[in-house]
Parts: sequence; C-alpha cells; structure tokens
Amino acid sequence: MPTYKAPLRDMKFIMNELLDAPAQLSQMPFYTTNETADADLMTQVLEEAARFVETELVPLNRVGDQEGCTRDEQGNVTTPTGFKAAYRKYREAGWTALDADPAYGGQGMPHLVSNMLVEMMCSANVAWSMYPGLSHGAYSALHAVGSDELKNLYLPKIVSGEWTGTMCLTEPHAGTDLGMIRTRATDNGDGSYSVTGTKIFISAGEHDMADNIVHLVLARLEGSPEGTKGISLFVVPKFVPSAEGGVGERNGVVCGSLEHKMGIHGNATAVLNFDGAKGWLVGEVNKGMNHMFIMMNAARLGTGLQGLGLGEGAYQNALVYAKDRIQMRHTPRVSSEPADPIIVHPDVRRMLLTGKAYTEAGRALAMWLALSIDTEHHHPDEARRKEAADLVALLTPIAKAFMTDNGFHVAVQSQQIYGGHGYIQEWGMEQFVRDARIGQIYEGTNGIQALDLLGRKVLMDGGKKLQKLAGTLQEFAEAHEDDEHIGEYVNQLGKAAQQLGSLTMVIGQKAMGGEGGADEVNAAAVDYLRYFGHVVYGYLWARMAKTAQEKIDAGADRDGFYLAKVQTARFYFAKLFPETKTLAATIKAGNEPLAVDDQAVFGWEAALALA
Amino acid sequence: MPTYKAPLRDMKFIMNELLDAPAQLSQMPFYTTNETADADLMTQVLEEAARFVETELVPLNRVGDQEGCTRDEQGNVTTPTGFKAAYRKYREAGWTALDADPAYGGQGMPHLVSNMLVEMMCSANVAWSMYPGLSHGAYSALHAVGSDELKNLYLPKIVSGEWTGTMCLTEPHAGTDLGMIRTRATDNGDGSYSVTGTKIFISAGEHDMADNIVHLVLARLEGSPEGTKGISLFVVPKFVPSAEGGVGERNGVVCGSLEHKMGIHGNATAVLNFDGAKGWLVGEVNKGMNHMFIMMNAARLGTGLQGLGLGEGAYQNALVYAKDRIQMRHTPRVSSEPADPIIVHPDVRRMLLTGKAYTEAGRALAMWLALSIDTEHHHPDEARRKEAADLVALLTPIAKAFMTDNGFHVAVQSQQIYGGHGYIQEWGMEQFVRDARIGQIYEGTNGIQALDLLGRKVLMDGGKKLQKLAGTLQEFAEAHEDDEHIGEYVNQLGKAAQQLGSLTMVIGQKAMGGEGGADEVNAAAVDYLRYFGHVVYGYLWARMAKTAQEKIDAGADRDGFYLAKVQTARFYFAKLFPETKTLAATIKAGNEPLAVDDQAVFGWEAALALA
Repeated sequence: MPTYKAPLRDMKFIMNELLDAPAQLSQMPFYTTNETADADLMTQVLEEAARFVETELVPLNRVGDQEGCTRDEQGNVTTPTGFKAAYRKYREAGWTALDADPAYGGQGMPHLVSNMLVEMMCSANVAWSMYPGLSHGAYSALHAVGSDELKNLYLPKIVSGEWTGTMCLTEPHAGTDLGMIRTRATDNGDGSYSVTGTKIFISAGEHDMADNIVHLVLARLEGSPEGTKGISLFVVPKFVPSAEGGVGERNGVVCGSLEHKMGIHGNATAVLNFDGAKGWLVGEVNKGMNHMFIMMNAARLGTGLQGLGLGEGAYQNALVYAKDRIQMRHTPRVSSEPADPIIVHPDVRRMLLTGKAYTEAGRALAMWLALSIDTEHHHPDEARRKEAADLVALLTPIAKAFMTDNGFHVAVQSQQIYGGHGYIQEWGMEQFVRDARIGQIYEGTNGIQALDLLGRKVLMDGGKKLQKLAGTLQEFAEAHEDDEHIGEYVNQLGKAAQQLGSLTMVIGQKAMGGEGGADEVNAAAVDYLRYFGHVVYGYLWARMAKTAQEKIDAGADRDGFYLAKVQTARFYFAKLFPETKTLAATIKAGNEPLAVDDQAVFGWEAALALA
Repeated sequence: MPTYKAPLRDMKFIMNELLDAPAQLSQMPFYTTNETADADLMTQVLEEAARFVETELVPLNRVGDQEGCTRDEQGNVTTPTGFKAAYRKYREAGWTALDADPAYGGQGMPHLVSNMLVEMMCSANVAWSMYPGLSHGAYSALHAVGSDELKNLYLPKIVSGEWTGTMCLTEPHAGTDLGMIRTRATDNGDGSYSVTGTKIFISAGEHDMADNIVHLVLARLEGSPEGTKGISLFVVPKFVPSAEGGVGERNGVVCGSLEHKMGIHGNATAVLNFDGAKGWLVGEVNKGMNHMFIMMNAARLGTGLQGLGLGEGAYQNALVYAKDRIQMRHTPRVSSEPADPIIVHPDVRRMLLTGKAYTEAGRALAMWLALSIDTEHHHPDEARRKEAADLVALLTPIAKAFMTDNGFHVAVQSQQIYGGHGYIQEWGMEQFVRDARIGQIYEGTNGIQALDLLGRKVLMDGGKKLQKLAGTLQEFAEAHEDDEHIGEYVNQLGKAAQQLGSLTMVIGQKAMGGEGGADEVNAAAVDYLRYFGHVVYGYLWARMAKTAQEKIDAGADRDGFYLAKVQTARFYFAKLFPETKTLAATIKAGNEPLAVDDQAVFGWEAALALA
C-alpha cells in the first residue's frame, strides 16, 4: 500500500524563505488582529495537519477505491468504510473552519495554510478530500454574495462542518456550455423559489457524512433571457433549515444514481433530481454565472492542488520503490547484490526528477497564488489588492491545467518506474493515475482553461495582466543575468518570456484579423498555456535556486536540502523547460493545419467504407 | 458502448499503394507456391476478418472488462461470458492458422495479413486478442528452434487453436533482469526435465478456452552458469500430450492466483507455480535467452499493434462523439442548434488529428515491418533477407515503444474529447486508457526498448543498420526535395535525419568516453527513441502524402481519401513532428543533469524530515 509523508520541509521553505509569507501577511490587519499569521503558529498547524492526514486519511485511500459509494433505492448514499468516522474527527479537530471567517465560527487562518492542508489531503486521499473541498466552494460563494440572512443560516453550519456543500452546474446536455442549462426556478412569492431539473456529475452530491447538504444550483428563473445572461444561483438544501438552525423538512432533491467512474471511487458523483425543491436566491437575479465563478475559481485552484498532491504521492512511492527494487547492473557496480537498485539507472532518475521538479514548482505556484489570494482579500492598500487580484486571475487557469496535466504525467511516470507491478492494483500506483485523470477534465476541461487564459485573461485586456507579470520576471532577470549560478537559467527564462510576448502579439493580431480570428485563439490556446506554464515554473525554479544557493554559500545547508533545490533547478532547465521549443513551433503553425476538409478527413463513412 | 469499424480502406492503401505488397510478395516462392499472396485473396481475407472482429469481439469488450476472470480453489480459471464461445468460432473459422506453416496445418498467409487481423482484434477487444496472441509467440519459438518431435507433437494443435500457448519469463524478483531467474530444471534422464519455480504476470496463463496450454518456460538447468548465459527454454504443457496426440496426464503446473489489474481484465494474468512439472528442452541448453527473443520480437510487434489498435478504437469513438456532441458556438455558426458540434472547435480538431496522424503512421510502420518479416523469412535473395532482418531488428523496439506511447496518448486525448463523460465507465473511453497503459510496460518496458534501440541496435554495430535506413531516407529526400507538395516535409525530414545522425555520433563518443559511458546511453535512450520514431513516421507521412497526391493529380480521389492523407501529413509536420526540437535539446543535455547528489536529492529521510 502506498505510503505518504507530508513534504513539510519544502512547504516551510516556500512559505518562509521563498515567499517571505509571515512578513507579507503581517501587513494585513485581518491576520494581525486575529493573530493567525504568526510563523510559529502556521508551522504548528501544518505539522498537526500532516499528522491527521498521514494517520487518518492515507489508510482509507485504497478502501475508498475498492469499495466506492453505494446508493439504496431511496437515494441514500453510503460512503466507504471509515470515511464518515474520519470526517467526524476532521470536523471535531476544527479543520473545516481553518481559513473561514471568524464572524461565522472560522479560525481566520491564511489561505496559504489551508492550501497546504488541501495539498496533503489530495496526496493522501483525493476522493475523501473532495467532501470538505466542495463545502469550501459553497462557503466562498455564500460568503461573497449571499444575503445576511442566508449567511447567518448556512455559514456557521458549513464552517463547523456539520453541513457540507456542493456545486450543481452540469446537466446532461450542458457541461462546458452552461448557457444551455434547463433547470428552472419559479418564484414562490414568499422569498423562496421552486427548483426543478436534473444535474449530473455532482461531486459529494449525496452522502452519509453530514447532517445536511447545501447545494448551490445554477437555474434559469422564469422569464429570464436565454444563454448565460439568464442564469441565477440558488441555495437548495437537502433538508430545509429549521428556524432554530437545525434541519427541518426533507427537500425535493434526490440522488437518482451514482456514476461508475475511472477513479475517485470514494467520492459520490451523483445525478441529482430537483423536483420542485425549495431554494433561495444567492446574489442577484441573472448574475448566477458571475457568482458561480467565485466557487469555480476556488475549485480550479483546488483541482490544481489535486494534480500537485497526486503527483507528490506518486513520486514519493516511486522513490521508495526505486531505492528498493534490485534490477540490472550498473557500471560501476553500486551494490554487492546480483543487481543494483534501479535508482542508479539514469532513465529512472530522469522519471524521478521529473516528478520532483514538477511537484516542487507546482507547490511554489500554488502557494504564491494562495498568498496572492490572501493579499487580494486583506491587504490594506487598494493598489496591492488589485495587483494581486490580476495575478490570481491570470495564474488560476495555469494552476488548474498545467498542474493537473503535470500531475497526471508524473503519476504515469511514477507508475512506469514500478514496471509490471505498477499495473497491479495492490501496489496502488494505478490508482494515482486513475484518480489524477479527472483533474484534467472537470471544473472546466484543460482546453477551456487554456481559452480562459489566452482569450479572456491575456487578450481581452490587451495583454495588461501579462505585461505586469512579464515586468516582474524582467526585473528578476535583469538583477540576476550575471549571477554565476542562475545566470544561465535567467538567460533561458528571459528569452522564453520575450518569445511568449511575441507569440501573444502574433496570436492577438491573427485574432483580430477577421472571421477566422476566434479559431486562431482556439487553435493556439492549449500549447500557449503550456508555454506560459513553463515560463512561470522557470521563474519559480530560478528563484528557488537563487534562495537555496544563498543558503549554501552561507554554509547553512545542513541536510542537503538546498543542494537538492539547486540540482533540481538544473534538471528542470535542462530536461523539462526545453518543451518550450516545440510549443513555440506548434503555436506558430496556427490554425491552418487544423482547417482540414471536413468531409474528406473526418468523413466517417467515406474513410471507413469498404472500398 | 464503443463502436468499431475496421479501417480497411487505409489498410488496403498501405498494402497496395504505399508498400506495393502483392508485387513484393510475388517474388517469394513460399507465397507463390501456396498461392496466398494474391491481392484479391488478401483483400477478401481482410474483409472476412473485419466482419468477425466487428461482430464477435467488439460486443465482448466491455463484458470482459466488467467481469474479469475468476479462479476457483483448484486453480481453474473461468474467462468472461462469451470469451470461450468466440474463441471456438475463431478457431473453427481457421484464424489461428492464418499465417502458420502449411506443414503443420497453417494457411501460409503473409505476416502482413495476420498483422492487420491483430490490429483489428486489438481495437475491438485487446484482452481477448491476447489468448491467440500468446499462442502465436509460442508457435514461433517452437517452429524456429524446436526438435522435429516437439514440432510434430505441438505445432498442429497450436495451429488449429485446440491448444494455446504462453511465455513464462518473469519471476517476482526478476522482470527486466531475466538473468536473475530462479526457476530450475533437472534432467529426468528420459529426455524430459523436471521444472520447479514460480512465474508471475503470465498473460493467458490459465483459462477455459482450449484443451491444453503449452507453456514456454525459461529455467536454469542444474549446473548451468549464473546470469543470462545459464538459462534454457523448456516446453511445459498443462496436460502432457498422449502418444496419440491428445491430452494425457495433468502436469505439475497450477495457477496460484490471478492479478487484479488496472486494465485488460478479460485476460487472465496468472501466477503459475511449477512443482516438478514435466518439461522438454526447446533448442539448445543455455541458449534460452536467444530462443526467447524469437517469441519476444513477435510479442513486441504485437504489443505495438495493441497501441495502434487501441489508439484507432479510441479515435474512432472520439470522432463519432465530436460530431454528435453540441457544445459552445463557433464563429461563424455551423448549425441552427443552440450550439455547434464540438468537432468545429480547433482544439478538438487538434486532438482528433493527433489520433488520426499517429494511428495511420503507426499502421504504415507496422505493415512495413510485417512485410519486412515476410521478406526476411521468404525472399530468395540472401542479401534482401539480411537487409530485411536488419530493418526488422532496428524498427522493432520503435514499433513497440513509440506505438504504445502514442497509443496511450491518443487514448487519453480521445477520452478528453468526451469531457466528463470520458471519465464514466459506461462510455468505454476510460477502458481504452486503462487497456492501453500496459503496452508501455510489458514485453520489456519502453525504457528497455529504448536501450535496445540505442545500445544494441544502433551503437553496437557501429551505426550500420542506422546508416542503411538513413540511406533509404536520403534517397527519398533527394528525389523529392523540389516536389511542390512534399518538398517542405522532405526538407524538415532531411534535417531531422541528419541531426539524428549527429546526435548518435555525440552519444556514441560519450559512450566510449570512460566509466560514465553507459550512463550517457541510458540517459539519452528514451528521448532518442522518440526522436527516431518521429523520423520514421515523418518518412512514412511524406511517402503517403506523395502517393496520395499522385492520385489527386490523376483525378482519382473519388471520396476524399487522398485529400485526407495529404492534409493529415500537413498536420503531422506542423503539429507533431516539431517534438523533435525539444528532444534534440534534451538528448544533448545528456546525463549531467541526472547525475545529482543521491543523498541530497533522493534522501527520503532528509527531504521529508520535520525541520
């Protein structure tokens, strides 16, 4: 069975040394008032989180995969053995309240800290982690745009973990294209609405872990315009809250079935049938899509953390196996066994270093983003808040898509290190692969993330957000271009950042060039996001190498941690960053090679006819 | 449930137009005597094969995945519902005998034809296809090096399909490194041997589909040298054949358990316990590894065909879905529905074209290899036989690794086109991914294939085989460098082929440069194989485009098939071939970035310690 140890050493390095987070957070009155951003406190919380995750969640990962969830004829869902008890412990230890607003019973810790808890949970047991994860999305939306009445009614219960939440967006015919949803809401005239329709793929949609489930549902209010402009957001609880704040009558929302999936078996993916269910409007009428993005952005970073966590989990186990498994001799011999541990073979090291380089850069990106979210919400300076918000907007699709693509890749490579054993269920490596695959698909496919990045975040504001980030990179590059250790990386990075700018210009010009413009954006987006991702990771690796080298130079590398950083940065720039060379070529090739003759190339009947 | 139509049109194009196979085969007396290489006959056989596969095997694919195989306490294995009946039909229709030697009841058809049958079976039901597939490996080894007595006893039964075969190589502690196997054989003094040991991961190792199972087992004869030089090959039947050629006493080989795997659930992956089982020596004492490679080479091409077939199957279904699924509007609109079919979105087209480009090039490679195997075995000219044998040796690891890597990639991309539905079991796309994953692992991991290619096939003979192939490419390039249609591709291809040569030189020099030489080969091998694969696919795409363009120019493109070839070639060179740019960089980076400090970088305890 897979093992897992939370990478606390690396988390602390990023928090304290790379991001200087305690000093950053100390500028924000919210954290100084609540006394929740103290370096020692944050460290202590992380260590406790690691203990909980390693002890309670790791042992349930395979159980969850094997048992899955079951549904009875009434639509009640039973989660795998141990899931419910672990959730009770989690809740009782206060983890559901970690970064929530103290006004509703939260502990008011920085997102930076909860971000690390989420990564740990994803490594340990991603299916389980989604129950509290979805609650967090529902919390965010209600907290941001709910009325005081709704907030007072729901938030304390969600924060305490007594109730969990969901996001009900997808319908059978409408996934990416939410403008087509058919679930409708009618005004009951008493402040409530009656919601009817079918939602599918609802993660944590029904289960036995909490007293109530708070569904946040996109629906079309009668008389609203067609498309995305006629969608509103409703809160539809499984049980209508009683006046006393407990659970009242059972509402008209029932789990019609559970999906049988490739992975994340321990999470209940429900078809939910709403049949005149009582709901209440969240935020403004017809602003449902905007409000939904509050949840969605949290969910996107959360999904990126799944890619990161699963990559880390797979990597850790591959490392153990590679040191243990004896196979083939190395020249020169490194053991007196009939063969040597496979970690000595360069191709195995290549796969391991790929895991290490992608996960550590991903962690740095996720934590940078989390700290930026804290800044966006709590910095006293409006300009700083705006700057942080722009960075979060720009980097969120990258965090979601690049981290889940890399997480899947790392899981596959880590499985490969096990040879045939990697294909056998009991070793647990194939579960990492199956569990990681969904991250590339849900919360907006990675193709949609790429369109969001290139179309909306970069081109739609004329490249302003991109230029701001490019300026940060440029500043760093100029300061270190002659550095004896990282000068070479900075040089590669500078060229790539410049090329990213010119590629953006080329696509932007094509995009404005008449009817095929949208196709040019669509054709380039996925490769563009990957290129951008490497520029971001390259920047973070160069910075990590710089920080680590300073410690080495100061004689402070007592355990080789900083040397590892420096050498992993070298690997990254030598073996992974050069993917940008291919991406530049495929981006430049544009839409033309995709604009093939439909009938000839995709004409099913013609292509397959017996001729 | 996934659908499948055998790509007969493309198979015939490659057979008749690209390879001119009927004319090639007509030079070989074996086929002219047996009258088995006639173009019409081969076409007719393919069409019958397609009907069988589409009708009998496709419907059993999901059944096999869901039911898997079961084993009772005595070690008897039951295959999924319908598997046994389909095998009986397959056998009765003569498919087991298709390319077998007429001297033992075979039909003597070219490997080229059986190769296409195997591709179809892999698309339709890869788990099922492995039962006859493994028999073929056993047949090849016995036919090549077995004594007349063994051949007369076993081959007619294997050819008729009454008995099936297996390859018993792997042991718990010895997978890649077969030199460490412990299964031992002792001489019974009566011409037979007593075989004892445990073999794992034995595909089709025990089942209910045939009267007998013929295990070909690697074991160490008492007193033999250590390592690979002390291994011999034995035939160990489940039932000892009776004097009359039927089945006699039950032999001492029992299925100890079945593995629970990520995919290919319909195939029984057995642990086989040999306990003083009666066996007979196949070929020479201590030449077992050489003899095993006869089976292994067939199995490697067969595994490549799995990657090809699964990619084709996944692609076909993604194409259907992409035309059917309505989601998001295109500019300009192409339908009056609320949204347009997703096939109009360039990123979806990119994923589809990736599937088409990789599978059609893979098919061309596989068929070129199969025709080369026919040439190697049957051409009257010794020089031509040698030339073909060299080509087969060089291209086999590429066919295995490049085709299975691409097959997995295509399966994943095809699943991605389905969005959330791709993750749900009932759509069948996730099964393609799970089934495709094993091809990268077994029959020698793709890392081992890469070492075989670079170390053994290229460097060990001083690059002679590579130069011969490079000469063929060069000749083609020179003849077409000014071609208005393919000149640009030929130009790209020529540069890449030249760079492949110089990269080979660089690695070769490093390899001879002292102690770290082997590490340099190991560090470069996987990227080198991928680079080489693109050069081969590029050559085949340029040739296919040339052949297709000639038909277009002659006004013979009645259904757009040739236009599709030309446009897919353009896509390949614009969007997939540029991967060579990255690979050149990572190959040049060599082993140095992998030669990290073990304690610092891979020091588990240090890296994870609470610090």
